[in-house]
Amino acid sequence: MATIKDVAKKANVSIATVSRILNHKEGYTEETRKKVLQTIEELGYHPNGVARGLISKRTNTIGVLVPSISSMIVSEMVSGIENVAHQTGTSVIVCHTESNGKKTMQYLHLLKEKQVDGIIFTSEILKNEYYEFLNKFNIPVVLLSSESINLPVPHVKVDDRLAAYHATEYLIKQGHSKIGMVSGNRQDMIAGLPRIEGFKMAMEMNQVPLSESLIVSGRGFSFKDGSEAFEKLISAHPELTAVFAASDEMALGIISKAHKMNIDIPGRLSVIGYDNLAISEMSIPPLTTVAQPMLKMGESAGEMIMNMINTGTVPENCIVSHKIVERESVKKIN
Amino acid sequence: MATIKDVAKKANVSIATVSRILNHKEGYTEETRKKVLQTIEELGYHPNGVARGLISKRTNTIGVLVPSISSMIVSEMVSGIENVAHQTGTSVIVCHTESNGKKTMQYLHLLKEKQVDGIIFTSEILKNEYYEFLNKFNIPVVLLSSESINLPVPHVKVDDRLAAYHATEYLIKQGHSKIGMVSGNRQDMIAGLPRIEGFKMAMEMNQVPLSESLIVSGRGFSFKDGSEAFEKLISAHPELTAVFAASDEMALGIISKAHKMNIDIPGRLSVIGYDNLAISEMSIPPLTTVAQPMLKMGESAGEMIMNMINTGTVPENCIVSHKIVERESVKKIN
Repeated sequence: MATIKDVAKKANVSIATVSRILNHKEGYTEETRKKVLQTIEELGYHPNGVARGLISKRTNTIGVLVPSISSMIVSEMVSGIENVAHQTGTSVIVCHTESNGKKTMQYLHLLKEKQVDGIIFTSEILKNEYYEFLNKFNIPVVLLSSESINLPVPHVKVDDRLAAYHATEYLIKQGHSKIGMVSGNRQDMIAGLPRIEGFKMAMEMNQVPLSESLIVSGRGFSFKDGSEAFEKLISAHPELTAVFAASDEMALGIISKAHKMNIDIPGRLSVIGYDNLAISEMSIPPLTTVAQPMLKMGESAGEMIMNMINTGTVPENCIVSHKIVERESVKKIN
Repeated sequence: MATIKDVAKKANVSIATVSRILNHKEGYTEETRKKVLQTIEELGYHPNGVARGLISKRTNTIGVLVPSISSMIVSEMVSGIENVAHQTGTSVIVCHTESNGKKTMQYLHLLKEKQVDGIIFTSEILKNEYYEFLNKFNIPVVLLSSESINLPVPHVKVDDRLAAYHATEYLIKQGHSKIGMVSGNRQDMIAGLPRIEGFKMAMEMNQVPLSESLIVSGRGFSFKDGSEAFEKLISAHPELTAVFAASDEMALGIISKAHKMNIDIPGRLSVIGYDNLAISEMSIPPLTTVAQPMLKMGESAGEMIMNMINTGTVPENCIVSHKIVERESVKKIN
C-alpha cells in the first residue's frame, strides 16, 4: 500500500508538504498542490486516519458518554446528536458507562486516545475528576440532560423544577386536590430533587394540602421502582385521585400495579408521567406526560459541541422547553 | 510533554527498542528494559494511544455496529458484549447506523481508522460490500442476531424458524385452532421470512387450517406496524382466538388496538409475542412471549470476537436456545 513517503518521493516534494496539503494548510504553490493530489490518485494513497490524526488536530469524531444502555431515554438524544454531526461529516462514537460511573474514567481515556474532537456527557453528573481530565487535555465538553453547579461547562436540559411544577399544576387544573407523587431518588441532584421541589411548589402555590408522606421515592426511576413506591403511597393515602410520576417508566409501573389492585385509571385515579418515551403511547390507557424534546436536546448539544470545536469559545447554557402531552391517563373531575 | 524520542535519547537506545519494550516484543536485554521503563517513569512519558496503534497491532478496542438506536432490542446484546470485553480490558465503541444501511460504510471506515481489533455486526445483513472491506483489511467480524448464507462469517443467533414454530405450537397446545399471525416484513431474510415459515410449519404439522390470509405483514416490527396489521387481520378473520406476533412491540400494538376495539385479552383473544423485551412485563396483561437470551447472545458474540482476535481462527456458528416465557396474554381454551 502506498505511503505518504511514496507520494512525497514520486511528487518530488517533502513529506511535510504532502501533509500540509492534506490538512489544507498554507505554504505551497497551486502547482505543487495539483501535482501532489494527482500523485495521491495515481498511487491510490489513502491517508491513514491514525497517522492523519498525528498530523492534524482534528479527527472529525465526537464521543458520547451515556450512563446505562438499558435506559430508553438516551436513544432519541443520541439520534439528535447524530443528525447534527453527520451533516458536518462528523462521526459519533457512543460509549456506555455504567450508572455508578464505574467505566467513566476508562472511557474518557479511550476517547482521548482515539483523539475525539469533543465529548458530550449525557445524563450523568460531571465529577471533578472527569472535568480535570478533560480540561487537562483541552477537550471540549457539553453536558446533555445534566448540569454542573460549580464547573464552567455548558449544558442542554429542560428545567426539571419548572416541568414538575407544570405537571402538578396540570393535575390541579383538572380539578384534583388529593395528589401524591412517586419520585425518583431524592439524592439525585439532576432529576430527583428538582422534580420533588417543583411538585411541592405547585401544591403550595395553589394551596393544595401537602405533607411529606404524599411523596414516596424509589431507588431509581424504573418500572419496578414506580410500582413499589405506588403501593406504599396508595396504602398510606387511599384518598388520592391523582399521582405525578417522576418518569414514564415509573408511571407504567403505577398503571400496572393499579390494574392488579383493581384501581381503574383514569376512572378512579389519574396518572401523569415525565419524559414522553415511546412506551407512553403503548400503555393502556396511553399516558399523559411531560415531554422533554429529546431529539431537539440532542441536536442542540450537537450544535453546541461543534461550535466549541470550531471556534474554541464556550457557549451559553441551553434550557429547552418542555410541554404537557395530553393522552388518556388523566381525568377531569369536579 | 515527553515523547518516545526523548525516552530513547535519555536511555541511550533506539526508538525501535523503546517501542519493542512497550509492545512486549523480543530483542533487548533485561537491563535495557529496566533502564527504559525507569526513564519512562522519570520523564512522565505516556505512550499516545494513536502512536501506539501505529506500532503495535492491538488497540484493545472492538466496534459494534447497531442498525437503529431506537430499537429496544439491541440494548441487552450490547451489555452482553461489554460484559465480556470489559473483563479482558477491552473497550467497546458503539456506532449507530441507520436501518437502511446508509451510514454503515462510513462507520466501517471510521472503525478501521480507529484501528479496532474486531467488529460485531448486529441485526443487519452483511452486504458483500461490507464483507470485502473488512476482509481486505483483515478485521475479524462476527454477526450477532443476523447471519450470512454465502459468506464465511460466523454468527450468533436464535433459530428464528424453530422459535416461531414453538410459539405457534404453544398456542395450539393451549387449545387454539383459529390462529393468525402478524408478521414483520416478508422481504427480511433474517427475522421476517423465517418466522413466517416457522408459523406455517407448526400449523401444517398440527393439521390446523392455514391460508395465506391468516398472515398479515407489517413494514417493519414496530408498535404501529403491529397495530395496523392486526386491524386488517381481525377484520378479515373475526373468528380468530389467538395471534402470534413477530415482535413484542407488534404484540403491544395488537393489545392496544384490541383494547380500543373492546376485544378482551386474553378472554376473547390470546396473543403471544417474540423477543421478551422489558416492555413485555409492562403491558396489561403482561405478555407471554418467546425469549431470545439477548444478554447471553451478546456475551457469546463477545467471546467469539475475542477468540478470533487472539487466535486468528474462525469459530463455529453459535445457535442459542430460545424459550417460551409464560405470562398472562394467552388463555387455555377447550
